[in-house]
Amino acid sequence: MTFKNHYEAFSRIVGSDNCYIDQPHRQAYSYDATRQTFLPDAVIFPRNEADVQAILKYANQHKIPITPRGAGSGFTGGSLSAQGGAVLALEKHMNKILEIDFENMLARVQPAVINKDLQNAVEAHGLFYPPDPASQDYSTIGGNVSENAGGMRAAKYGITKNFVLALRAVLPNGELIRAGKKTIKDVAGYNVAGLLCASEGTLAVITEITLKLLPKPKLTLTAMGVFSSVAAAMSATYKSFINGVTPVAMEFLDNLTIKAVETAYKKGLPIDAGALLITEVDGNVEADILWQIETLQQVFKENGCGAFFVAKNDMERDAIWFARRNASQSLKVYGPTKLNEDITVPRSALPELLKRITAIGEKYDHQIPCFGHTGDGNVHVNVMTNRQDMVRYHNAEKAVRDIFEAAVDLEGTLSGEHGIGVSKAPFMNMAFSQSEMNFFRTIKNAIDPNNILNPGKMGL
Amino acid sequence: MTFKNHYEAFSRIVGSDNCYIDQPHRQAYSYDATRQTFLPDAVIFPRNEADVQAILKYANQHKIPITPRGAGSGFTGGSLSAQGGAVLALEKHMNKILEIDFENMLARVQPAVINKDLQNAVEAHGLFYPPDPASQDYSTIGGNVSENAGGMRAAKYGITKNFVLALRAVLPNGELIRAGKKTIKDVAGYNVAGLLCASEGTLAVITEITLKLLPKPKLTLTAMGVFSSVAAAMSATYKSFINGVTPVAMEFLDNLTIKAVETAYKKGLPIDAGALLITEVDGNVEADILWQIETLQQVFKENGCGAFFVAKNDMERDAIWFARRNASQSLKVYGPTKLNEDITVPRSALPELLKRITAIGEKYDHQIPCFGHTGDGNVHVNVMTNRQDMVRYHNAEKAVRDIFEAAVDLEGTLSGEHGIGVSKAPFMNMAFSQSEMNFFRTIKNAIDPNNILNPGKMGL
Repeated sequence: MTFKNHYEAFSRIVGSDNCYIDQPHRQAYSYDATRQTFLPDAVIFPRNEADVQAILKYANQHKIPITPRGAGSGFTGGSLSAQGGAVLALEKHMNKILEIDFENMLARVQPAVINKDLQNAVEAHGLFYPPDPASQDYSTIGGNVSENAGGMRAAKYGITKNFVLALRAVLPNGELIRAGKKTIKDVAGYNVAGLLCASEGTLAVITEITLKLLPKPKLTLTAMGVFSSVAAAMSATYKSFINGVTPVAMEFLDNLTIKAVETAYKKGLPIDAGALLITEVDGNVEADILWQIETLQQVFKENGCGAFFVAKNDMERDAIWFARRNASQSLKVYGPTKLNEDITVPRSALPELLKRITAIGEKYDHQIPCFGHTGDGNVHVNVMTNRQDMVRYHNAEKAVRDIFEAAVDLEGTLSGEHGIGVSKAPFMNMAFSQSEMNFFRTIKNAIDPNNILNPGKMGL
Repeated sequence: MTFKNHYEAFSRIVGSDNCYIDQPHRQAYSYDATRQTFLPDAVIFPRNEADVQAILKYANQHKIPITPRGAGSGFTGGSLSAQGGAVLALEKHMNKILEIDFENMLARVQPAVINKDLQNAVEAHGLFYPPDPASQDYSTIGGNVSENAGGMRAAKYGITKNFVLALRAVLPNGELIRAGKKTIKDVAGYNVAGLLCASEGTLAVITEITLKLLPKPKLTLTAMGVFSSVAAAMSATYKSFINGVTPVAMEFLDNLTIKAVETAYKKGLPIDAGALLITEVDGNVEADILWQIETLQQVFKENGCGAFFVAKNDMERDAIWFARRNASQSLKVYGPTKLNEDITVPRSALPELLKRITAIGEKYDHQIPCFGHTGDGNVHVNVMTNRQDMVRYHNAEKAVRDIFEAAVDLEGTLSGEHGIGVSKAPFMNMAFSQSEMNFFRTIKNAIDPNNILNPGKMGL
């Protein structure tokens, strides 16, 4: 049977205006934020949960790969149809905020709601959805759940999985399940919602998400510390937490990143600094946020911080955040190609990790600017190289492997936020034993015996 | 083969002083906090992880049921050997705190560490492990993880699963896996640690647990509000959260419970009150905790609260907590047998739930005192009956079924803390669809194909 027949079957389910096999549609859904492309055989826009059920049931019978896709903004190829088949593009129809339950402080959304749209909608009610991945302006909640996205505020508030109360999801055989409840506590049955978080669309297609919300803190205060060395900044980070402050955000830029931002934007940043730490605290009472900032200032000063700036107004706050927000795109001064990884280590291992990354950069003659979420040990490591220069690029890839090895050696992980997808699949054996990989495969094979859901991902 | 041969095999693994088939040992490990008993064929005390591996490998080959057990303090029979075989009693040897990592604010423990011992140990370092089930003085961390225990502080801090960073666990085939990392973020591979939380020992034997810790808040403040009706107290609860306060604890006692405590202890409690709310806030700055308490007082007053007491010292704090801490054991004035369930509903459904429970009590002519964690919608419902009176007891059982139906109807769950075990297994079909039950069985069968791990639990 050719894909033409399948196209007719899918069109009967969703209507011909929601199913495409033409080249422009296939190409439009062949890429994500990685540079890799995989051409799907079809692009289907399900209108609702029943469509998803019918599509999966048919696909399962005919063993057609189905790759669920939100905004396609992932960094590891999670939404790419690595083995062909159909992309299940949820963004066209399944993008509604279904309910903001003020009394129970929760939101019920379809998977393709944009993260920032949800944040704005709940903040209008005085509520707060903390997970704020850098992609918040375009990434979807369904994608955030599937990759278990983090963000700047994870240091205090945790990551996406900490906010998922319940899911509705369609299994590969087309059956619908509900997992979790609209309750803070639920210990009946296996923690299926927990399992589906970070499963990268390989086990089920999530059709509805119920998220826990918090009351929006009334006050925030932002500060920046200038450090002589990156090691000092890393020490100051974990010592801040020990001293009882849990900052919302604790972000760092290393010297290479500071220089890149300054080169690009001329903001008067201290280009000789070893590192900057940008931190933000929140609360409901002025005395509380002042205590937090004063404690941070004291800990910073005791750990090699020179100048310490506290934002006095929104303009100064934006100025402090500018460097961090524009770090990523500034780095091209070091090379046209960026190999961008998001390794994570226990906070106290950060100084050693950064030392090893410097040594790896020297070994392979590459500049490796680093920035990211020191508050949760999550470093965005950027090996700046040139894809056109084969020798150089090959060395950059070796540097990436060494960086992963360093992270694993320091009891860290391959990914704190981006997931595994196709990009990091080759490194899974570095981080997991044969028993652990087999265990992942046992779960995958049991739930998706025909391997139709997002095949070719996570090294499975 | 008789069990005698297996006994010899197990004795070769752990030594004869760690394996017993005598009647006293079997009986000592035949019960838990339920009234049910199941006599195991053997009781084995593994000395370490390698013992657990060897025991499971042998048991899997010979299809011998293995029931992991911590303190045996569960309320649903999770640690009872429902289908015979061996109890794997972890409390004798695998009870060490392995590491308190001050710098990364985490603890690494063996499964049979007592919850309160861990709390005390980390508080000596200025750190804080929030989950505090009522059983904290004797229940184990392994049990807490396996049942996903809650506690008084869940309203603010969440439940056990929110603190599990990583696990080591032995699969039914004897293989060891690690799940999760010593990092806040980890999105490499499936969320296996999340799946094992609340899995009631049916998928793997947990041999080591890495827990996230927080800085210990420096200040707490406790208060009690007296309400004219239970509905008013329930409304005040969810409105408190909306007003931006996230109290550590928000506990209630209904009128029947207040009367029972007063009858038992003569503390001068307001026996005509419809309900008491006991609440506690914490923080690091006095102005902050005062703001929280004042906000609670205002919201309480706007929602039918009469007297509002704030504890001025530890003695007054203990006096306020006395009624809540002694609620459970006071209830016997209403009958010699207590059917104690821990249903949970969305917070805003609490007034309706309590109304329905009153009606159920009238329908079956039973008194049903209620108390518990209103802050997370978790009500301890106590149908007070008499096991010796068959007719009455049968009616009590019908009342329990009606209560579960009410909880499910109000989008709640069968259990917020206690788990399913054997006690609630008959009700799983009420809460889960056929597809959902099949999904649980798919997971169970894939991971434990010989069904050796804690068989007969969770309605699987």
